[in-house]
Amino acid sequence: METVPPEEAVERAKAALDRDTLLSTETVPTHESCGRVTAGPIFARYSSPTFHAAAMDGIAVKAESTFAAREDAPVALNHGDEFLFVNTGNPLPEGMNAVIMIENVVQKDEVTALIDAPAFPWQHVRRIGEDIVATELLLPQNRELTPCDIGALISAGIYEIEVRERVRTVFLPTGDEVLNFLDKPEPRAGQVIESNSQVFKGYADSWGIDAAWSKPVPDDEDTLREAVLKALEDGRHMVVVGAGSSAGSKDYSKKVFESIGTVLVHGISVMPGKPTLLGVTDERSGFPGRLLVGAPGYPVSAVVCHEKILAPIVHWLMGKALPERSHADVILARKTPSRPGMREAIRLAAGRIGDQIIAAPLARGAGMITTMTRAQAVTYISEDVEGAEQGQKVHAELLVGEAELDRVLVHVGSHDNTLDLLANELMGLPVPLRLVSSHAGSMGGLTALKAGSALFAGAHLFDPDSGDFNFPFIGRYLKGVDVAVFNLAIRHQGLIVAKGNPLGITGVDDLKRDDVTFINRQRGAGTRILLDHHLKTAGIDAREVNGYENEEFTHMAVAVNVLTGAASCGLGIFAAAKALDLDFVPLARERYDLVIPARHQDDPRITTLLDVIRSDDIKAKIKNQGGYETDLTGREMEPGMGLNG
Amino acid sequence: METVPPEEAVERAKAALDRDTLLSTETVPTHESCGRVTAGPIFARYSSPTFHAAAMDGIAVKAESTFAAREDAPVALNHGDEFLFVNTGNPLPEGMNAVIMIENVVQKDEVTALIDAPAFPWQHVRRIGEDIVATELLLPQNRELTPCDIGALISAGIYEIEVRERVRTVFLPTGDEVLNFLDKPEPRAGQVIESNSQVFKGYADSWGIDAAWSKPVPDDEDTLREAVLKALEDGRHMVVVGAGSSAGSKDYSKKVFESIGTVLVHGISVMPGKPTLLGVTDERSGFPGRLLVGAPGYPVSAVVCHEKILAPIVHWLMGKALPERSHADVILARKTPSRPGMREAIRLAAGRIGDQIIAAPLARGAGMITTMTRAQAVTYISEDVEGAEQGQKVHAELLVGEAELDRVLVHVGSHDNTLDLLANELMGLPVPLRLVSSHAGSMGGLTALKAGSALFAGAHLFDPDSGDFNFPFIGRYLKGVDVAVFNLAIRHQGLIVAKGNPLGITGVDDLKRDDVTFINRQRGAGTRILLDHHLKTAGIDAREVNGYENEEFTHMAVAVNVLTGAASCGLGIFAAAKALDLDFVPLARERYDLVIPARHQDDPRITTLLDVIRSDDIKAKIKNQGGYETDLTGREMEPGMGLNG
Repeated sequence: METVPPEEAVERAKAALDRDTLLSTETVPTHESCGRVTAGPIFARYSSPTFHAAAMDGIAVKAESTFAAREDAPVALNHGDEFLFVNTGNPLPEGMNAVIMIENVVQKDEVTALIDAPAFPWQHVRRIGEDIVATELLLPQNRELTPCDIGALISAGIYEIEVRERVRTVFLPTGDEVLNFLDKPEPRAGQVIESNSQVFKGYADSWGIDAAWSKPVPDDEDTLREAVLKALEDGRHMVVVGAGSSAGSKDYSKKVFESIGTVLVHGISVMPGKPTLLGVTDERSGFPGRLLVGAPGYPVSAVVCHEKILAPIVHWLMGKALPERSHADVILARKTPSRPGMREAIRLAAGRIGDQIIAAPLARGAGMITTMTRAQAVTYISEDVEGAEQGQKVHAELLVGEAELDRVLVHVGSHDNTLDLLANELMGLPVPLRLVSSHAGSMGGLTALKAGSALFAGAHLFDPDSGDFNFPFIGRYLKGVDVAVFNLAIRHQGLIVAKGNPLGITGVDDLKRDDVTFINRQRGAGTRILLDHHLKTAGIDAREVNGYENEEFTHMAVAVNVLTGAASCGLGIFAAAKALDLDFVPLARERYDLVIPARHQDDPRITTLLDVIRSDDIKAKIKNQGGYETDLTGREMEPGMGLNG
Repeated sequence: METVPPEEAVERAKAALDRDTLLSTETVPTHESCGRVTAGPIFARYSSPTFHAAAMDGIAVKAESTFAAREDAPVALNHGDEFLFVNTGNPLPEGMNAVIMIENVVQKDEVTALIDAPAFPWQHVRRIGEDIVATELLLPQNRELTPCDIGALISAGIYEIEVRERVRTVFLPTGDEVLNFLDKPEPRAGQVIESNSQVFKGYADSWGIDAAWSKPVPDDEDTLREAVLKALEDGRHMVVVGAGSSAGSKDYSKKVFESIGTVLVHGISVMPGKPTLLGVTDERSGFPGRLLVGAPGYPVSAVVCHEKILAPIVHWLMGKALPERSHADVILARKTPSRPGMREAIRLAAGRIGDQIIAAPLARGAGMITTMTRAQAVTYISEDVEGAEQGQKVHAELLVGEAELDRVLVHVGSHDNTLDLLANELMGLPVPLRLVSSHAGSMGGLTALKAGSALFAGAHLFDPDSGDFNFPFIGRYLKGVDVAVFNLAIRHQGLIVAKGNPLGITGVDDLKRDDVTFINRQRGAGTRILLDHHLKTAGIDAREVNGYENEEFTHMAVAVNVLTGAASCGLGIFAAAKALDLDFVPLARERYDLVIPARHQDDPRITTLLDVIRSDDIKAKIKNQGGYETDLTGREMEPGMGLNG
């Protein structure tokens, strides 16, 4: 079966399901029906108000008896037959048809009121049925009830209401390698902690459906079939089988679906999201006409399945409008190739810069749920094209409110743990700022500034000829861009080695050893440039370094390689070694600076950022990480300063 | 104390509250923390994946051993030391660093695999920490947790999480005249059914706070004080006292607040919403530093208080961003005066017409909750101006998704019960359409068409000279606008009189009687024009008709006046008399038509509308109302047809 576009997948499900048979109706107390959908038209039982009511504190009168009143010829009214005192909300006394505000009444004596202006009929009176007339149509069928609807219904004496049933569903995670998070497991190699059920649950709750989940079901066809049949028996309208992290030989969902129903869709033409499966049960299941879903195992694929397939189907089932996300045109900060024939979901770190929204594509792996937690937007690159260019304007779904984009600091550049520290600090401000980082290396940061696609860039580029940092590179690659440079910290770079340094590594000369494997940083990273400088000084050819071609994008990733034995050592910062309890062989001190274009220096986000890095509090926290010095932190740098400030 | 703008009211509350003292933190299971806000930074406990994992089904190899492979010179690998079979998700066997997809492997014999292309290192491998690196910052403080965040947290082994407490609040409705809806009351004159607590509850639930409510508290200062103190004792951070429908002498909230705290705001400069009260408790309450709120009694005032005052304060307390509504520029369909010095909330029936969103202002009474259920948008007219003009572009908050506006049929014109019937029918379509009606009378409808501010107009204008309907008026008032006219129904107009017709009313001649009071329709209504025609024919001057100057806007409102004895009779349709079990003295048959501009005739909403009114099903339902004939229903009318089609 071929993959189909998500819209087609949704249409197939709609065509195969009879929602009026599938979902019944139920009567619920009106005050518990917010978010539910009316099963039929609702007519008012009582009017609101049920009586002519005074809308002001004052006196009730017959308007006609005041028509002659003038400022110089007031009309006197007698208490009882000609006027009566009323408060707001009181019923209008019989025969009266207007209210005069108490401040416009002169009380001549105990029983006489003087009026110096005519009252018009029904003035300051809320008339019967002003809001609701008994018997009128209050709400039509298929209305998703809002808080105000509940108010109107109760006001009209509707205390119970017939609504459509909620969709009942269950998520069945599968996989022998998948651990139940309720057991608080410590995963070993080959094991993953099950979490897709909870992502689904979060979506399902936001849709207002009744969603349960089970512990992981082992990779066994019969066991899975039993679990699905049990869910149908329990009255679930939709059963979602979540694939494990594995695929292929262990994926029994399709076989199970085919044994109790018809598979409608086997794969959608969206990446991530492709291995989405849809089916409908038949008589063999005992409960025909229910929806079967195979959700992909990779978390981002599952999210695409929930958002693009399940959300539209579920809302249609319930007769609700699909909530719309805000959309905006954003400028892509990087060229983004994509596969023709497949629509591709690109997660974006996005923020407003000037009058544009700049969006840096995040990593694309379907297994990377953190790209969803980091993203402010998602764009879909059409199946008709081979990608999008840097600087191209693309239409994106916003994951945060549009105003939030003014509070995002888009950083592109070198990675440093201090940025995470900063990110947390900025979220603690009275008006929180969100620092989003695209790890592109120091050179990548400068390139982004040149393209106008970052608010600032972190760089630690050492120039051996001058002994200076960053300025020589700025001069070369940022010609014509006026920037200021502020130091974030001086940091220690060194070789991260296993605890106890079992191989006795003492410097770059050891990288030539046969028993030493190195893990490198990506091209353009300041740390790689530093390594190359040290290799050159020591007269070592890169080809002599075992593992030189293996790249990671962050210090922490380098440290993880050492921790797991995938490499014997890598060049990185002390903080990364310390975090994973590894040893550290110091090699150099370097300046990590923030490069800020002059045109952004008055941006309130930048002035806030600079205020924060100048505070004693943050300096103490930076130092506390170990391997950092803060003598220059927050100070503006000038060319030629080197490490001396 | 003067009224203050809502922004100022919010700032005063923020300044008076210490949120870090008021709200504590708590530890909750991660899978129950969606929507909560992190109390501090969260660092990953485990990496994800925790191992190098195969990303495809195939064989694991050392990349180096495949570098020589060519299509014409395949490399043979031995099972065991040179390759091993792996499925997606399996840990990469020790020493291997790449996966070759099974479809690219030729199995020569049981232990030998042939490879005809080199594998590059780490191909088809998800490396350790690809998604999450242990110890790294996963989420910063003050993060509102999304479903994807929950997935990331569990993947990283975070099974419990410290979050900010939820705001706890209670709504205390007040008023002797207010009935507890849980008792399913039948209100008498002077009584209203309490519903504001449930509107508040609906808002509070959408904010994710813990909201309780009580039965109505009687109008007694000490009783109210006790209720407030009890709520504080119960740990409520915010106590909302809902005023009854009455105000003035019975409003004890302020006195109570002053006795246990400080009043910060007494009135906001927004209508509806003005009588909003804010205070903060002091030592006398036993629980200093809590928020006291006096919510207005009129439902729309209360809604403005919730949206403009409480929502920002509550979100600030919880460290959440205030959810943003979509905004759009809309064209006002009518001149809308407003009071300088007060911001005015105008509820709008809005829909897209062509490339504009046209918005007809709904009734403005603060007591009319149905204006909130009918509106698709709200605009705020600034305190600096005296109103907005017809055709003026104003900025509006959308209460529905923007795409919903394409599914709204904006009707301006004469009211007929059949429109409610149609509205319900249109909501039953596979893609529901929402019919919103601005009751402006037949002439008002034609005027709206002329101004381009309605998709269609309902009209039943009788021209005595020609004996024809609508066309003579279209010729006069819609010059240059090309329209088509379709009949909705022929309907019976007559005098609606009390059950049993106690005054023996038989025709318009009776309207001259002293003991008969009439209730009229508004100027421009076809029914009023019909009345004037009958009065003229009978030689009766309008001044002879007792009550001629009293106007209502709908047939149902006229009928309610008769039902309650506010008038002896009024001219209206049979359906209105029947709905309220009143008697009906037939006077005339008339054609109620839908006037549709030619430029909208291909609009899918209009073609759907015409399809619906041509169905036998709807004709039966129209007839079933009584007082309608459907011989012409759905047929296009021509000038001169009169009642004969």
